Amino acid sequence: MRVDGREVNQLRPVTIETNYLMHPEGSVLIQVGNTKVICTATLEDKVPSFLRGQGKGWITAEYSMLPRATQERTVREASRGKISGRTMEIQRLIGRALRAVVDLEALGEKTIWIDCDVIQADGGTRTASITGAFVALTQALAKLHKESPFEKFPVTDFLAATSVGFIETIGPVLDLNFAEDFEAMVDMNLVMTGNGRFVEIQGTGEEATFSRDELNTLLDLGEKGILELIEIQKSVLGEDAKLIQN
Amino acid sequence: MRVDGREVNQLRPVTIETNYLMHPEGSVLIQVGNTKVICTATLEDKVPSFLRGQGKGWITAEYSMLPRATQERTVREASRGKISGRTMEIQRLIGRALRAVVDLEALGEKTIWIDCDVIQADGGTRTASITGAFVALTQALAKLHKESPFEKFPVTDFLAATSVGFIETIGPVLDLNFAEDFEAMVDMNLVMTGNGRFVEIQGTGEEATFSRDELNTLLDLGEKGILELIEIQKSVLGEDAKLIQN
Amino acid sequence: MRVDGREVNQLRPVTIETNYLMHPEGSVLIQVGNTKVICTATLEDKVPSFLRGQGKGWITAEYSMLPRATQERTVREASRGKISGRTMEIQRLIGRALRAVVDLEALGEKTIWIDCDVIQADGGTRTASITGAFVALTQALAKLHKESPFEKFPVTDFLAATSVGFIETIGPVLDLNFAEDFEAMVDMNLVMTGNGRFVEIQGTGEEATFSRDELNTLLDLGEKGILELIEIQKSVLGEDAKLIQN
Amino acid sequence: MRVDGREVNQLRPVTIETNYLMHPEGSVLIQVGNTKVICTATLEDKVPSFLRGQGKGWITAEYSMLPRATQERTVREASRGKISGRTMEIQRLIGRALRAVVDLEALGEKTIWIDCDVIQADGGTRTASITGAFVALTQALAKLHKESPFEKFPVTDFLAATSVGFIETIGPVLDLNFAEDFEAMVDMNLVMTGNGRFVEIQGTGEEATFSRDELNTLLDLGEKGILELIEIQKSVLGEDAKLIQN
Amino acid sequence: MRVDGREVNQLRPVTIETNYLMHPEGSVLIQVGNTKVICTATLEDKVPSFLRGQGKGWITAEYSMLPRATQERTVREASRGKISGRTMEIQRLIGRALRAVVDLEALGEKTIWIDCDVIQADGGTRTASITGAFVALTQALAKLHKESPFEKFPVTDFLAATSVGFIETIGPVLDLNFAEDFEAMVDMNLVMTGNGRFVEIQGTGEEATFSRDELNTLLDLGEKGILELIEIQKSVLGEDAKLIQN
Amino acid sequence: MRVDGREVNQLRPVTIETNYLMHPEGSVLIQVGNTKVICTATLEDKVPSFLRGQGKGWITAEYSMLPRATQERTVREASRGKISGRTMEIQRLIGRALRAVVDLEALGEKTIWIDCDVIQADGGTRTASITGAFVALTQALAKLHKESPFEKFPVTDFLAATSVGFIETIGPVLDLNFAEDFEAMVDMNLVMTGNGRFVEIQGTGEEATFSRDELNTLLDLGEKGILELIEIQKSVLGEDAKLIQN
Repeated sequence: MRVDGREVNQLRPVTIETNYLMHPEGSVLIQVGNTKVICTATLEDKVPSFLRGQGKGWITAEYSMLPRATQERTVREASRGKISGRTMEIQRLIGRALRAVVDLEALGEKTIWIDCDVIQADGGTRTASITGAFVALTQALAKLHKESPFEKFPVTDFLAATSVGFIETIGPVLDLNFAEDFEAMVDMNLVMTGNGRFVEIQGTGEEATFSRDELNTLLDLGEKGILELIEIQKSVLGEDAKLIQN
Repeated sequence: MRVDGREVNQLRPVTIETNYLMHPEGSVLIQVGNTKVICTATLEDKVPSFLRGQGKGWITAEYSMLPRATQERTVREASRGKISGRTMEIQRLIGRALRAVVDLEALGEKTIWIDCDVIQADGGTRTASITGAFVALTQALAKLHKESPFEKFPVTDFLAATSVGFIETIGPVLDLNFAEDFEAMVDMNLVMTGNGRFVEIQGTGEEATFSRDELNTLLDLGEKGILELIEIQKSVLGEDAKLIQN
Repeated sequence: MRVDGREVNQLRPVTIETNYLMHPEGSVLIQVGNTKVICTATLEDKVPSFLRGQGKGWITAEYSMLPRATQERTVREASRGKISGRTMEIQRLIGRALRAVVDLEALGEKTIWIDCDVIQADGGTRTASITGAFVALTQALAKLHKESPFEKFPVTDFLAATSVGFIETIGPVLDLNFAEDFEAMVDMNLVMTGNGRFVEIQGTGEEATFSRDELNTLLDLGEKGILELIEIQKSVLGEDAKLIQN
Repeated sequence: MRVDGREVNQLRPVTIETNYLMHPEGSVLIQVGNTKVICTATLEDKVPSFLRGQGKGWITAEYSMLPRATQERTVREASRGKISGRTMEIQRLIGRALRAVVDLEALGEKTIWIDCDVIQADGGTRTASITGAFVALTQALAKLHKESPFEKFPVTDFLAATSVGFIETIGPVLDLNFAEDFEAMVDMNLVMTGNGRFVEIQGTGEEATFSRDELNTLLDLGEKGILELIEIQKSVLGEDAKLIQN
Repeated sequence: MRVDGREVNQLRPVTIETNYLMHPEGSVLIQVGNTKVICTATLEDKVPSFLRGQGKGWITAEYSMLPRATQERTVREASRGKISGRTMEIQRLIGRALRAVVDLEALGEKTIWIDCDVIQADGGTRTASITGAFVALTQALAKLHKESPFEKFPVTDFLAATSVGFIETIGPVLDLNFAEDFEAMVDMNLVMTGNGRFVEIQGTGEEATFSRDELNTLLDLGEKGILELIEIQKSVLGEDAKLIQN
Repeated sequence: MRVDGREVNQLRPVTIETNYLMHPEGSVLIQVGNTKVICTATLEDKVPSFLRGQGKGWITAEYSMLPRATQERTVREASRGKISGRTMEIQRLIGRALRAVVDLEALGEKTIWIDCDVIQADGGTRTASITGAFVALTQALAKLHKESPFEKFPVTDFLAATSVGFIETIGPVLDLNFAEDFEAMVDMNLVMTGNGRFVEIQGTGEEATFSRDELNTLLDLGEKGILELIEIQKSVLGEDAKLIQN
């Protein structure tokens, strides 16, 4: 069985605490099992230079871990003076995923800064970041919408993410924790929308390969998990969820 | 009166939640009013090269703020590729302060890494970091002491810190929040031990100066606040507090 | 139809010139349409510190573009003093992909350095890099095998990569050039082995999403293209191809 | 007794050579015992962006040591590619101290760059830098005042600095040289104005602590030394000293 | 005799392939023996800030080596995060040399970016870069001249470079390959114009010295080689060579 | 005539003050007209890794300018976080030049660190650095020789440097100051030994060229100046000069 007693197609317990911090326009603490991430959304009234004057907005994301989010202390990227390849990949993924469900013309010349800071890590930090950041972003835009309504609310659909993988002794599983992730031969991150379309598929054999059939089983598992995560998002967003008309 | 209704010699409400994270040897979430800092202590079985072979340990500290700990988003030091002068000053202060109440010979050839990550900032983040880090450090050493007892428990006294300052319209005040800090003409950070001795005095006129009498009033205020903080530390440390024999 | 007159399921002309440079153990110039990449393989008789003493080898990859490989001059990463997120993603992908078809125990305590330098870019530089690097790596190991035979030749299967995508006016297409890539709403890079298993799937909606059916069409196209690429690899590898026993 | 035969309350011999270099607007070579620092003041007709348009000026300081200012060769910060925490602390201190005796509104939209370069180090380099930089700054502004008079001369008071400390075998001493500094259990830097007010107190127990009484003795010693330093400043400034009306 | 059988005053075989890449305004692959360099010229319609508004243009050069251009793999400068002193020297030399034969007023407010990327190194990479870059630059300007003619064609003379040196067992030699360069006691790079004037002489004793007579012999050899290189440039430039009226 | 009234073949007044600093093994302040450079030599009992175990020593040089050595304030390289191309060129030149007159085998496994810090700049800082550094290096080795004699004193000959150039309105001149250097069309740095052999010739046309005859005139001027500089070195070295047996 799975190390924490879950079914192969079962998510870990998920909670999303909204308005977690006093300063940001949107902020949540998302917990997926023992993984805890603070996600904030900051609105800025300008866009990067490559977009200036086009009437479009932008979303950019940054991701980091506290040094003791991990079992062994991780050296701070600020101390090393540079950002690792892993961090860059993750923050590019988060930004790209969110941009797929935000109408950047409807947003107008604004930048949304997403910050995902992992307080405690137990696998799945990048997918928890996406699921949490979506809520923070939506709340930040909903707050702005109350003060000065958008013609069209820029969020076009729900968005959540999870991981699936293939463990030799178990087979395909949903939402891997750190111990499972370490053991997995195939690791796949999926980002999907509320209407069941893919935004991102990143499947990787870890010194291993996978067949088309195995791929299909993993996609089925992931889709189930993401739809459950979106239900949780809807519930914590409450009235704000209704602004999203997909 | 003060912006939040406090007496001039009154601390903000302080809570220290211990064992806040699952991985570190010691970890707390300290809240001083709206200022929230996660402090962790990590034990490592080696020392920096300048101490190797001397039978002594070392304590080193790192400090950081989440980008949206602050009212306006602060650019990450990892993104800028270097640590600011302010951060360096603070992390050097935290390490130096803690070393004053730890017997490094009794500790043996170990390094204690202190990480202070500000989740939410409302003034006094460096003093809250010291007060919280002392608890995390003591708990990490107490845990180790239970498994393999030190001949002499290395923590020699309690240690806490607060700020005092001089506000033109009010006069001297204890434990400034961000709004007060911004207004203050004189800003002083004090670190003291459980038996009332100074470890560090850092008093600065902000484009202003102060007299010997004003200095004495500020020191009196600070001493009162620090003794109250140490009572809180004792209470959250419980049995572990008894290991400290000052 | 397609901008260069190809069928939707047709690769661009591919040539792989082996032994392209005099110094490296393995080197090729791969051309996929107008995309030209020099791929080299360097053997080093040691491994990174995290692998030392485990009897296993390692493969690491670096990727770069000449400043005028592109239409507009790109600033050198050496001049900017740091490697972009895009470059990091690509070089991590190349290394990971190659490791999936090399038996690192059979390789022994050696590092294979792969360098992919894009001389001219017209779309698909990362997939051309993987396809070319596989040939350079195999030739480098084959040369070593002749001098001092491996017990088991470390390359376990063929490996090639291509891109597929979804263009609004055409639908799904194979092997996108730069103009097509720019237009595509969905962009997917596939890495597969000689026996038709996946090593990596990276599918991304560019401010867009895609359905499960669309995904399946893209995977079919990609599989066809990769099998053709592997035939070309076999042909240029000649006798060396027989060392690979999948 | 003290290692160099001084009384506990005696400064080392101090000389300040003005107009030491041909290019800067103000420049001195200050010698405090064997410590030698070149201090220059540069006037620039603009302010940092955070002050633009406010009619106020700014003072910023940089500090460095020649590699062989010290007994052992120190690696250049330019070679290491970054500025140490110690250097940052010192240059922030120098700038802050000088700003306390300069009326930034009277200065107008100008930046004064202070450069303190230690040619030879024997303890007390940061306090010698402040004492010397004050003279260089005053001369630079006096020269400008002769060409185009300020409505109000911006320097509002004299400013000097020294160190005091507590040595186990001697007790409290004034103006520590390197050997004394190395031995001291408490180390305190004081910056004061001509009318005897504090600008900065930085007192640190070096793995030690100090009582309120000990603090008072140290402050008395420091005040005596600083008033002597200010007499020397007045003497070398000559006529220019009269522009300062405290 | 020489390791490759050449006479002491004989160049290696030289070929210059023009229009080597599809994107740049000018591009060549120059081969001098086994040394191969891709040189490109990029025209940009602005100048660095220090030249703005003066009606003059600028030429700037960058130089790099592929990691396996060399016998042992060279770490990428992008990976090390900084450019080596050797690279800086070379790129400053290339830019300076080309500026000596371009009338920057006639060029107008344009920047010409020269990129020299060494594909394979066997000695003399910096001089091959200058010789090749001159052709790429001339072709880029000739192409522009056809579209919108300059009043005066900015290239004022031909320019080529070679190395000469002193080998203990042979004496003075022209155009050293890597093995010869390694052995040489004196190493000199010469840059000259079509009418036989010097642009740059860089002669260096490698832990050795040289007399005035030896210098004169080396200069004679170099002059002979450079005039031969200029004949090759004229031949590959064809009609474009006639635009240069020295 | 020349801006400072000198003959075209006349050096500026030169003084070399030895034992300028208390800590280094060798140190001088060299003044060449208004150019002032502190040169120090530091002996270290190990060599860089590429020389380890070969019984040979090494000489490495670093060069820097104080920010206000120049007319306009120059930004510190430590603040910019990297060393400029100009600085790298100069420090490579200084090290290479000194190595030509030091027998590295006779030196044994030692590194000599040369630091040249320009206090005031008025042209010719790199050549003054070489001339001064030679004296500091010789004194450092002479001091060591008295304590523990070398079998063969490692300095094999004298070494000095100067600049020559071609000014349009005057013609060829020796030892250019900053104003002359700025105006010069050809700028040449020469390094020679006591017996009149060249170590380094670096001649550069500044957007100009020069003939073989002009070169010869410049070399004659430089030789005259360098022999005068070597006489001054001999005089300040006194007894130590006799250790050099060229």
